[in-house]
Amino acid sequence: MEAMVTDIDEAIAQVRADVARLHGELVRYGLVVWTGGNVSGRVPGADLFVIKPSGVSYDDLAPENMILCDLDGNVVPGSAGSDRSPSSDTAAHAYVYRNMPEVGGVVHTHSTYAVAWAARGEEIPCVITAMADEFGGPIPVGPFAIIGDDSIGRGIVQTLRGHRSRAVLMQNHGPFTIGASAKDAVKAAVMLEDVARTVHIARAGGEILPIPQAAIDSLYDRYQNVYGQSSDERRSGA
Amino acid sequence: MEAMVTDIDEAIAQVRADVARLHGELVRYGLVVWTGGNVSGRVPGADLFVIKPSGVSYDDLAPENMILCDLDGNVVPGSAGSDRSPSSDTAAHAYVYRNMPEVGGVVHTHSTYAVAWAARGEEIPCVITAMADEFGGPIPVGPFAIIGDDSIGRGIVQTLRGHRSRAVLMQNHGPFTIGASAKDAVKAAVMLEDVARTVHIARAGGEILPIPQAAIDSLYDRYQNVYGQSSDERRSGA
Amino acid sequence: MEAMVTDIDEAIAQVRADVARLHGELVRYGLVVWTGGNVSGRVPGADLFVIKPSGVSYDDLAPENMILCDLDGNVVPGSAGSDRSPSSDTAAHAYVYRNMPEVGGVVHTHSTYAVAWAARGEEIPCVITAMADEFGGPIPVGPFAIIGDDSIGRGIVQTLRGHRSRAVLMQNHGPFTIGASAKDAVKAAVMLEDVARTVHIARAGGEILPIPQAAIDSLYDRYQNVYGQSSDERRSGA
Amino acid sequence: MEAMVTDIDEAIAQVRADVARLHGELVRYGLVVWTGGNVSGRVPGADLFVIKPSGVSYDDLAPENMILCDLDGNVVPGSAGSDRSPSSDTAAHAYVYRNMPEVGGVVHTHSTYAVAWAARGEEIPCVITAMADEFGGPIPVGPFAIIGDDSIGRGIVQTLRGHRSRAVLMQNHGPFTIGASAKDAVKAAVMLEDVARTVHIARAGGEILPIPQAAIDSLYDRYQNVYGQSSDERRSGA
Repeated sequence: MEAMVTDIDEAIAQVRADVARLHGELVRYGLVVWTGGNVSGRVPGADLFVIKPSGVSYDDLAPENMILCDLDGNVVPGSAGSDRSPSSDTAAHAYVYRNMPEVGGVVHTHSTYAVAWAARGEEIPCVITAMADEFGGPIPVGPFAIIGDDSIGRGIVQTLRGHRSRAVLMQNHGPFTIGASAKDAVKAAVMLEDVARTVHIARAGGEILPIPQAAIDSLYDRYQNVYGQSSDERRSGA
Repeated sequence: MEAMVTDIDEAIAQVRADVARLHGELVRYGLVVWTGGNVSGRVPGADLFVIKPSGVSYDDLAPENMILCDLDGNVVPGSAGSDRSPSSDTAAHAYVYRNMPEVGGVVHTHSTYAVAWAARGEEIPCVITAMADEFGGPIPVGPFAIIGDDSIGRGIVQTLRGHRSRAVLMQNHGPFTIGASAKDAVKAAVMLEDVARTVHIARAGGEILPIPQAAIDSLYDRYQNVYGQSSDERRSGA
Repeated sequence: MEAMVTDIDEAIAQVRADVARLHGELVRYGLVVWTGGNVSGRVPGADLFVIKPSGVSYDDLAPENMILCDLDGNVVPGSAGSDRSPSSDTAAHAYVYRNMPEVGGVVHTHSTYAVAWAARGEEIPCVITAMADEFGGPIPVGPFAIIGDDSIGRGIVQTLRGHRSRAVLMQNHGPFTIGASAKDAVKAAVMLEDVARTVHIARAGGEILPIPQAAIDSLYDRYQNVYGQSSDERRSGA
Repeated sequence: MEAMVTDIDEAIAQVRADVARLHGELVRYGLVVWTGGNVSGRVPGADLFVIKPSGVSYDDLAPENMILCDLDGNVVPGSAGSDRSPSSDTAAHAYVYRNMPEVGGVVHTHSTYAVAWAARGEEIPCVITAMADEFGGPIPVGPFAIIGDDSIGRGIVQTLRGHRSRAVLMQNHGPFTIGASAKDAVKAAVMLEDVARTVHIARAGGEILPIPQAAIDSLYDRYQNVYGQSSDERRSGA
């Protein structure tokens, strides 16, 4: 029993370190301003996840002030950081972990171009090969939903379950991305903003050319499967 | 009496440090170029505020060269930094402090997208939830006014008094933001540019979807009140 | 014989160092996100080239984990880094080296504005003098082709052979650039994104003015020839 | 006599240091890529100016590799850096110094938004107060002219002589700015790109509002004259 507790403690420590560090990628790629945005990661082998505290500067994010929650989004009493409030988006993250057991990480940002598509409630068409590789088709739009109950989490899950895309644009709100790990979800958030910006600019200049569906399927299949690597590795591409 | 003087000295020192440091956030978020832009903060418990000197590089801003002014915008003789001129926008800041006792900080920038809306004299519609959270509705436009008398300060106060928004777009000029503290006003300046850019890009791509007024009210109410935190904390969100 | 082997070892070491370092320029100029993009360089005096490994963070690129390939794109067994996979674009680079002996470097990115033109399958018109200097006319579009055979490499070579431009926009995919060296190809990638962005923005604001063909020819001729410098030097301009 | 020579040596050393350092501002504000762009400064009390060498990385710019030229643009033999070629735009800088004795600094860049207006041959209308302060009205367009004779220099001088603006958009080419010193010309280049971007974005969103001519005159007059400071200081504003 003791060894098992130790394993989970180690897993928690690892996810705390990963989640703290990965927030730096949101800053590096310009996806967040001030204290906005959040990354979470599921603790392997436990009904727990780790998420960013609310209202803390990105300069001050360290493993020990990440917050440990159960899958209902309640802070685990006595755990490191439990004197702070978790991100106000914690309920949405928790809903995803409860309902999509294959998800190991969730990211939410208000990145500019992704929010711009969300404010029009318009899916991003798949017109560049990098988007076919990464998302396997268009980026879908989720319903308008506001904070306060399960409606955001439900909207994410209903939109992404069974969908190739690991990203959803919640209408008038912004993107949520999921992944096999926190890192994979962060990569999806970075790639999403990149394609949201590129396709916006492409269309602003004139008519964009569609990619044939067979080519989209082929690209997605190769990118996800050919290498026979782990999910993280196969998606690190390029 | 002496103890009281000491308290004010400490308060002044604290505001000097805050105001000097917060100018770095304007640079970090790309809201200013060269020596443009300015942050000020009211000294709690005194009819004084601290503001940036005129024409000094952002590389050279230190607490001791911030400038201490009374609420008429006059430099306090003999105070640290009083050999320099205060920002040319000092009169506008002073007018706000004289007429809005609840304001603890004022920020002015020429941030790109906010100025773009100002050059059209067009308010920014509230089509993203982060904007409802932070500003409670559209960002209003203030009158065209030029430097030289009280007209800029008057325009700011007339537009923002009783308004949910902590930001005003002075026509053909640029944004002023207010807050409970200098930090709160800087946050408003950062968030303003973020929404100005996002809504510009959203609308450039097609028709934007309105958010129902009831949802705007609900988001604003929750963001401002639910947490029961201090103004700074409750607005640090996310 | 032994001395000759040493020369090639030194040449390989030099190209490894150059290629590793030059990836930093892709990051500096914002041409890549995550692990996307790749630079390769031909080893002078050998049928070999050096290219980035697949899926490795830009923070971790060092000479010793660059990958040495023959001109069919096969990793040289036992060479440093040969435990990793080369970039998934290796076959396209190899095709270029096999078929364009004058090419010493190849770069591929998904830089935003270049991809935007590619997504419309539209060549970039030559309306700024810097573009005439550097590319001698418009940037051409290459065919739609997907990974898996020689079609990308073939499309690059068919488009650029005999063309003044060192850059091609592969339709719905993105830019490839070539050069006399890896550095020259990186410069082309940087300048391409710069002109792609500038011409996009110019045209977004109204009608752009053509440059007379005689002026384009004169600018290109001067920039490429007047200085009598090596290819790298003559192209470093300004 | 000897003392006088020493004074000029000191003046040259000062201008070398200023010009080398000021190139860093072009990088900081994103006005240049690769080795593009150049700053020069006149040596007070001598018919000499200092300019950037051609084709040298911005990482390698130091006072001792700046190049000293006479007012015909010839490198001063034996001076530090005289083993390199000066910027290919040296003739244009020299023409300005010969014909505008009040000019102490010249800057040339291919900054994105300024070039975009130049590619349309369209002046930038004065619709923001910061532009009235700094440039006193619209930014004018200069003629199409290519490198090889005095036509670029002539175009700059003919456009800017007697004009309030310290910036000209050379058609299909890019901006040149002048100033009382190299620093003042760099400030003009930074402010120009800022207004070029802001007015572009403003107009992209709808109809822009003109500023009444009397207000433009009043703003320009105050900004240039009220403070009674030196040219550099009065223009450092804000």
